[in-house]
Amino acid sequence: MKQRRLGRGVAIVGAGMSKFGAFPGLATRDLFVDAFQELLASVDKGFNPQEIEALYIGNFSSDLFEGQAHTAPIMADWVGLTPRPATRVEGACASSGVALREGLIAIASGLYDIVLVGGIEKMTDLPTSRVTDTLATAADVTYEVPAGFTFPGLYASMATAYMHAYRATPETFMKVGFKNHENGALNAKAQFGQRIADIMEARKASAIRKGRPVPTWSDEMDFLHDDRANPIIAWPMRLYDCSPISDGAAALLLVSEELARQFTDSALHIIGAGQASDGATHDRPTLTGIPAARHAAKMAYEMAGVAPADIQVAEVHDCFTIAEIMATEDLDFFPAGEGWKAAEEGRTARTGDRPINTSGGLKSKGHPVGASGAGQVVEIWKQLRGEAGERQLSGDIRLGLTHNVGGTGQTCAVHIFERR
Amino acid sequence: MKQRRLGRGVAIVGAGMSKFGAFPGLATRDLFVDAFQELLASVDKGFNPQEIEALYIGNFSSDLFEGQAHTAPIMADWVGLTPRPATRVEGACASSGVALREGLIAIASGLYDIVLVGGIEKMTDLPTSRVTDTLATAADVTYEVPAGFTFPGLYASMATAYMHAYRATPETFMKVGFKNHENGALNAKAQFGQRIADIMEARKASAIRKGRPVPTWSDEMDFLHDDRANPIIAWPMRLYDCSPISDGAAALLLVSEELARQFTDSALHIIGAGQASDGATHDRPTLTGIPAARHAAKMAYEMAGVAPADIQVAEVHDCFTIAEIMATEDLDFFPAGEGWKAAEEGRTARTGDRPINTSGGLKSKGHPVGASGAGQVVEIWKQLRGEAGERQLSGDIRLGLTHNVGGTGQTCAVHIFERR
Repeated sequence: MKQRRLGRGVAIVGAGMSKFGAFPGLATRDLFVDAFQELLASVDKGFNPQEIEALYIGNFSSDLFEGQAHTAPIMADWVGLTPRPATRVEGACASSGVALREGLIAIASGLYDIVLVGGIEKMTDLPTSRVTDTLATAADVTYEVPAGFTFPGLYASMATAYMHAYRATPETFMKVGFKNHENGALNAKAQFGQRIADIMEARKASAIRKGRPVPTWSDEMDFLHDDRANPIIAWPMRLYDCSPISDGAAALLLVSEELARQFTDSALHIIGAGQASDGATHDRPTLTGIPAARHAAKMAYEMAGVAPADIQVAEVHDCFTIAEIMATEDLDFFPAGEGWKAAEEGRTARTGDRPINTSGGLKSKGHPVGASGAGQVVEIWKQLRGEAGERQLSGDIRLGLTHNVGGTGQTCAVHIFERR
Repeated sequence: MKQRRLGRGVAIVGAGMSKFGAFPGLATRDLFVDAFQELLASVDKGFNPQEIEALYIGNFSSDLFEGQAHTAPIMADWVGLTPRPATRVEGACASSGVALREGLIAIASGLYDIVLVGGIEKMTDLPTSRVTDTLATAADVTYEVPAGFTFPGLYASMATAYMHAYRATPETFMKVGFKNHENGALNAKAQFGQRIADIMEARKASAIRKGRPVPTWSDEMDFLHDDRANPIIAWPMRLYDCSPISDGAAALLLVSEELARQFTDSALHIIGAGQASDGATHDRPTLTGIPAARHAAKMAYEMAGVAPADIQVAEVHDCFTIAEIMATEDLDFFPAGEGWKAAEEGRTARTGDRPINTSGGLKSKGHPVGASGAGQVVEIWKQLRGEAGERQLSGDIRLGLTHNVGGTGQTCAVHIFERR
């Protein structure tokens, strides 16, 4: 594919998100208002929201989750932006990564100067089994689903293929979940913002209170091997290898590059963007990586003119722990088959040389699927601007990346950001 | 809202559609392949489909209709375009009007030169009552649906408001349906491609065959007043005031203006594009027109630099007959409150001074909701290129317009095309 440059540059000058979690009684529109209000407060020099000219809303399937399709104009209405064009974009769990790309393209086209990009999902109104079935509609219902696959099963297949090819073990995957909970514990927006050690303590305290036998885990890995505390979902994937079912929203304010200084002196310029598609897993040459992620990453790196080694912080799509390991290889942070070793060695921890998912990732922060891609950008916004609080990376962090996957990789969107 | 010009011009150089109808046993992807193959054959100078760089697919809710979300990458896969970026866009019944706009914007941005825009929907696998419920998710499920509304009821409310304000009668609406069946009878792709007179003859012949009493309708209007032949759906709307439940797909090939001559000497340049959003009907100042359509039309006319009187042929969103009448006013073809008189006077017929829905419109051609917007463009493609066969308008037809509405107007997309 040819690689072109955009007609003009685009920068992010504001970002916000709701808390991720389970919020009975709230609708998608309520969570989006939360995200929008945090976005308004994040614009350093302030602005009049009526200057926003269009909206792109990433949403997987409010259709199935809430019985409400046609969500974009409702979001526009609830933040006071009617009659501006409001477009819903869907790419399964990459919906708001793709919405970000559309916002970028729309400003680059010259049609708009100021665009609001949102991501929304409200998943917890359905019982868990129906959520699993609903998510399965993002797989191929002609080929994959009739074979008995849901997403834990599909990613478990990728995990076993990866283990077979590269000799990784289930313990490797556990360490990714462990690491992401360490990060998420420092993120007030996280759905499960507890370290594994804290979860263990809470479980023990609860057992004492209830007069039940007190667990005698020797350490976190012992806990993660406990079939009761961490049951197998689809082998080798256990509960703590899987991102949760979540509600949430995130919002980003995009402006043309030449306007950025009117909003902030610390904007995130979108210097690279890639997107790719693929068939479903039954028709791929490999299960040990995601081809669409490799294509999207290549496009983004080429547009940005940077190398994988230049990226200082990345939020990658850890819907399952294996997905984070594959992502670090698909993004060329590590060679194919080496990602699991990097995870084992702590290189992807906050203190490592290649910090991944400092927000806690989808695993700990939560995975309201249509909001996750935009939520990733909120973390990069904070890290690049030095606003990530206790989880702030040290040093001059100027280059960040997001990697957002839909399905098992039928869609992937990668973006690269530079603070200027 | 400010009105800007696009970074560069975009033209349509190919168009195709499947037959619209009810196709048990076929999936969306099959219909899209049909549309794509007709598109390939429509490119005058031929081209290599591998030159396509990205896809935008309009789809309302395969999620609910087929249990298949994440449809865009599947469409890319089935026409051999993996791993190109494939993005689904949703704006209810305006989904592929909005997808066209995104394709236009993407080329204008400079990122791509050649983009495939598609529209798809497969509605007939569900029983009719569930289709009605599914379509109702495009209304506001917090406000409109709990009040008992489905779409026939919502448009019936608009029809009664219009009748009250302007003294139109149900007979006016009948004449719109009558006219669109006259047009659709000349369109081999139409789902209900019969004139009302032919339907009457067929009904009489059937009664004779079955030994039942033969109806004694005196003319078409008599038939349309017959509560058995044309039952009331939601007063004043009868069966022949309502577009059908349909399956179908359509596809458009967009290229940057400077490339158009490589594909054809008779391209449709997209000279105007508008889109707008709105809240639901419970929160609007008027029900006798669609405010988002007025906004979108204004944007499109201003971008194109043409006046409503310049438009020679228009495909408008006649999901119900009242919608066509309101559209002709929202587009400023006729003053507010005068559209019904124009319909009565035959001005919107093929032989009138303002031909509307020469294809048969959604009423006769069919309304596979996510495909309808792209399907409208297929008709403009044919009329502007003199390829509309028996329904071809006379004279030098160079300027056409499409008007695609989502819901009751929470989304509207208007495009203006010039043959050059």
